[in-house]
Amino acid sequence: MFDKVIRIDMTKIEATEEILAEQYKQLSGRTLSSRLVSDEIPPFADSLGPHNKIFITCGLLAGTTVSSANRLSIGSKSPLTGGIKESNAGGIAAYKMGRLGIRAIVLEGLREDDNWYIAVINKDGCRLKEASGLKGKGIYDKATLLYEEFGEKIGIILIGPAGERLLFTAGVANNDGDGAPGRFSGRGGLGAVMGSKHLLAIVLDDTGCIVSEAAEKDLFKEKVKLFHKGILETTQTNETLPKYGTASLVDVTNALGGLPTRNFQTGRFEQADKINAQSLYDTIKKRAGEGNTTHSCMPGCIIRCSNIFADENGKTIVSPLEYETISLAGSNLEIGDLDTIARINYDCNDYGVDTIDIGAAIGVAMEAGILNFGDKDAVLSLMQEVKEGTPLGRIIASGCAITGKVLGIRRAPVVKGQAMAAYEPRAVKGTAITYMTSPMGADHTAGNLVRTNIKPDMKEQLVVASRDAQIAMTIFDGLGFCMFIAASVKDRQILVDLVNARFGWDITKEDLVQIARENMILEREYNRKAGFTEAHDRLPEHFYEEENPVTGTVFDITEEDLEKLVF
Amino acid sequence: MFDKVIRIDMTKIEATEEILAEQYKQLSGRTLSSRLVSDEIPPFADSLGPHNKIFITCGLLAGTTVSSANRLSIGSKSPLTGGIKESNAGGIAAYKMGRLGIRAIVLEGLREDDNWYIAVINKDGCRLKEASGLKGKGIYDKATLLYEEFGEKIGIILIGPAGERLLFTAGVANNDGDGAPGRFSGRGGLGAVMGSKHLLAIVLDDTGCIVSEAAEKDLFKEKVKLFHKGILETTQTNETLPKYGTASLVDVTNALGGLPTRNFQTGRFEQADKINAQSLYDTIKKRAGEGNTTHSCMPGCIIRCSNIFADENGKTIVSPLEYETISLAGSNLEIGDLDTIARINYDCNDYGVDTIDIGAAIGVAMEAGILNFGDKDAVLSLMQEVKEGTPLGRIIASGCAITGKVLGIRRAPVVKGQAMAAYEPRAVKGTAITYMTSPMGADHTAGNLVRTNIKPDMKEQLVVASRDAQIAMTIFDGLGFCMFIAASVKDRQILVDLVNARFGWDITKEDLVQIARENMILEREYNRKAGFTEAHDRLPEHFYEEENPVTGTVFDITEEDLEKLVF
Repeated sequence: MFDKVIRIDMTKIEATEEILAEQYKQLSGRTLSSRLVSDEIPPFADSLGPHNKIFITCGLLAGTTVSSANRLSIGSKSPLTGGIKESNAGGIAAYKMGRLGIRAIVLEGLREDDNWYIAVINKDGCRLKEASGLKGKGIYDKATLLYEEFGEKIGIILIGPAGERLLFTAGVANNDGDGAPGRFSGRGGLGAVMGSKHLLAIVLDDTGCIVSEAAEKDLFKEKVKLFHKGILETTQTNETLPKYGTASLVDVTNALGGLPTRNFQTGRFEQADKINAQSLYDTIKKRAGEGNTTHSCMPGCIIRCSNIFADENGKTIVSPLEYETISLAGSNLEIGDLDTIARINYDCNDYGVDTIDIGAAIGVAMEAGILNFGDKDAVLSLMQEVKEGTPLGRIIASGCAITGKVLGIRRAPVVKGQAMAAYEPRAVKGTAITYMTSPMGADHTAGNLVRTNIKPDMKEQLVVASRDAQIAMTIFDGLGFCMFIAASVKDRQILVDLVNARFGWDITKEDLVQIARENMILEREYNRKAGFTEAHDRLPEHFYEEENPVTGTVFDITEEDLEKLVF
Repeated sequence: MFDKVIRIDMTKIEATEEILAEQYKQLSGRTLSSRLVSDEIPPFADSLGPHNKIFITCGLLAGTTVSSANRLSIGSKSPLTGGIKESNAGGIAAYKMGRLGIRAIVLEGLREDDNWYIAVINKDGCRLKEASGLKGKGIYDKATLLYEEFGEKIGIILIGPAGERLLFTAGVANNDGDGAPGRFSGRGGLGAVMGSKHLLAIVLDDTGCIVSEAAEKDLFKEKVKLFHKGILETTQTNETLPKYGTASLVDVTNALGGLPTRNFQTGRFEQADKINAQSLYDTIKKRAGEGNTTHSCMPGCIIRCSNIFADENGKTIVSPLEYETISLAGSNLEIGDLDTIARINYDCNDYGVDTIDIGAAIGVAMEAGILNFGDKDAVLSLMQEVKEGTPLGRIIASGCAITGKVLGIRRAPVVKGQAMAAYEPRAVKGTAITYMTSPMGADHTAGNLVRTNIKPDMKEQLVVASRDAQIAMTIFDGLGFCMFIAASVKDRQILVDLVNARFGWDITKEDLVQIARENMILEREYNRKAGFTEAHDRLPEHFYEEENPVTGTVFDITEEDLEKLVF
């Protein structure tokens, strides 16, 4: 049965198993993790203290053959924002959870001694194992050692040294089907929460697991086929994403004046053609070797938007190399060189930090004159400082907001303490409304409107579109789906059909919307109790007053405009 | 007439003079600066951006012969807390303002070029002068150069390199009658606000000024005599403070278990007798030379609680050396050595930072293992890093809250981002209620209850006492009075008598209370608009859960208890 909850108490070093309570049964991914955060973590709790918890969830279709349905969702109270957080990623961990019949893994309790642990979960249950020897090792070495011990087929959820050091950009990684531990729930510092509990990794071994069949087996098969047909018949999911991946956004945002460049000073990068999708594609193809332009991050994903980026000798530098990193660690630093960006990405992954917040922090450090825009060597040596944990490295790894404060730079592109993703807010206004209002801080995945046709002066429509996008994304996040299915899902009926066929339920697509709306209200209410007000739903001041040189516009959405944003 | 406002626009490099608006006439010090902050600075304003301002005010009795009535009050939106701030200090600047007939100096506008300025105010008005050559110099050198240029009798309001670098612990200094620029409006990072405007110093030259006589000259003289008689007939103000100064609190808090020791881990310091008032007094007396146990910080102050601390050769190390610094840079760091503490104090002064927040930050760095508790040499060399602005130095100079975040230490003693003063909150619960609820963050001067007789379990009475202390302190701060007159003021009638005699008014002591109450409501409302909620009126979590080893108590004032705190 797909209804287990593994609860790991790191103070007692004890793992117990329970059945998911009835009231949570229809929730999964973000809607389940946020509900558990709200129910179990006091809003005043210190994010790195004894009362914070981590809820690791998967989607209702995890472990099945459904494409793009195996996102891993990690929820907690964020040390970075101080509010509720959900950060999801691809990889194989959620698939393994599904096969193990686990709906949620709960980490609770604090450890402040010198002992560090891993949790090993298999069909017989969960056991905790002292593993202090792994402490201090990078994510890649940790993964290698875990494969040696537990076999190469395991799923791994793990943190790097950044999480151990409680740094606010620390993410939680999991691995892909090739064994690369590069799928990051990167945002919000959730790796630091895991670090505060001294749990270095969760090993998911599904050997011997038999996934229970769908309640309506034939119907399920039929619906899966129909769903996959939709993906295969959509240009975006069958051509653009498999070939170019997320990097195709470089040309889109650059054209809009929305590609963050030189610490968000402007939105167009003169070297964009060196880092855009075509350049990425051509480079990978030309170098061949281990490189690959088309790659699945999740088992069974037929979109395959991921990639493997190899060096001139065909050896992998990093996988994947994606748009947000290409911009934040590229254009935002005036770096028009994919190799350098890939190496920054690798260093971030290995240390276990969010490339978005790190890229934004380095942009701020460049504006402060610590290093020069465009100086590749200086960035790579700064990344070494980050990994070594020097004082400057710790500042950067504390994220963009703190870097701005320590270095005296008020033009730090952050909302609720979290760095903006790669959409310059004065040019990509719809996404910026999401930055302002999402309980998550400046996350693009909370509701991206980069491709909207709504004109920038149609404020009310933009606000409503952001709200609707936030609900739509919550529906995907709440089912464990990758948001890239959006283009192929003309009607959400297919999503409920899949769920209903698996579980023998009869939920409607209106139910999905209702669950998403309730989730948004709950997340916002949690943040309100944690101390957020409308004062926190603002962009940094300079975006309202200084023009984006490309578009000639300032950001002009006011508190009054946001009154339409009712969930 | 005592009604001028000097408004300095640092964007235009322009100073204008206006008359204080009628509605502000009865306000001064904190009540005037907070009202101006509320009226002129949007609550959402970036503290280091173009819309923040600084309001420098003095008391209604400034420039007169009244003892202890020349506190300088500096108000702004704080970069450290993000809320309204008033930080006041002794020194001669407020006295000079009074003699110049200036009720307020307003600094507004931002500069982001390479030019730095000073403002020179004399009887003919205010002019701005380029003074980029002063940039980067320590507070003491800056003062020396200003004395050389403008004579030794000037008042100076100035910032150090920390303010120029926009660091959040940067304070604003002014000078005493001996020329030492060691009187700090230290709290809340107001030096960074001044730095953001590129104004390095304000020179106050009262040559040729004739202070207008009191409206009721004879009555005023009589009331001054009566007021001074009160001071001279009170043991606290005529014996204890002149002899021992604020250092007498060391024994008081140590006995209570409330002397912050080793990053507030405990409240009793085994070396307290090396840093207490008797030790300070004996050391100064023994060394003689430039040292002095009894010293006025303000012209005409007859309490003279200040001191000059000299080294073994009788050469001044620093003036003054006070309780908060002795604890935060002493017991809190396990340093039982007045010379080391005095040197830390000097370094803080010279760089222009708050000794409280710096001491607390170093305590956190010690808990993080960056240096060891008790390691004097390591602290002094860390202070050199602070002054040089190395990355670690910048972390420390960003204050205790940020230091905790960057170094992964959740046990940082802060409220609203500001470090606690030298009263361990589990032992000195009344003062801790003030820490929680003062709009200023963890300031002891906002309402200190270290000497209360209310028992720790009488929560309601403690909450009410904190409220009353906050009102009482606001009355003093709102008149430019030093809080040390409190012991000698049995009846506030004397305070209104002095004001009424000077101005020919007929305000009552009930009016004083009403003005103070309205001020508290206004400050809290400003903070509410700036984004503060009851979630911010809390101490760090561990104080509620881990016992003070001396008292065996945790902090136990809840949100419900605070409902009695109505102004």
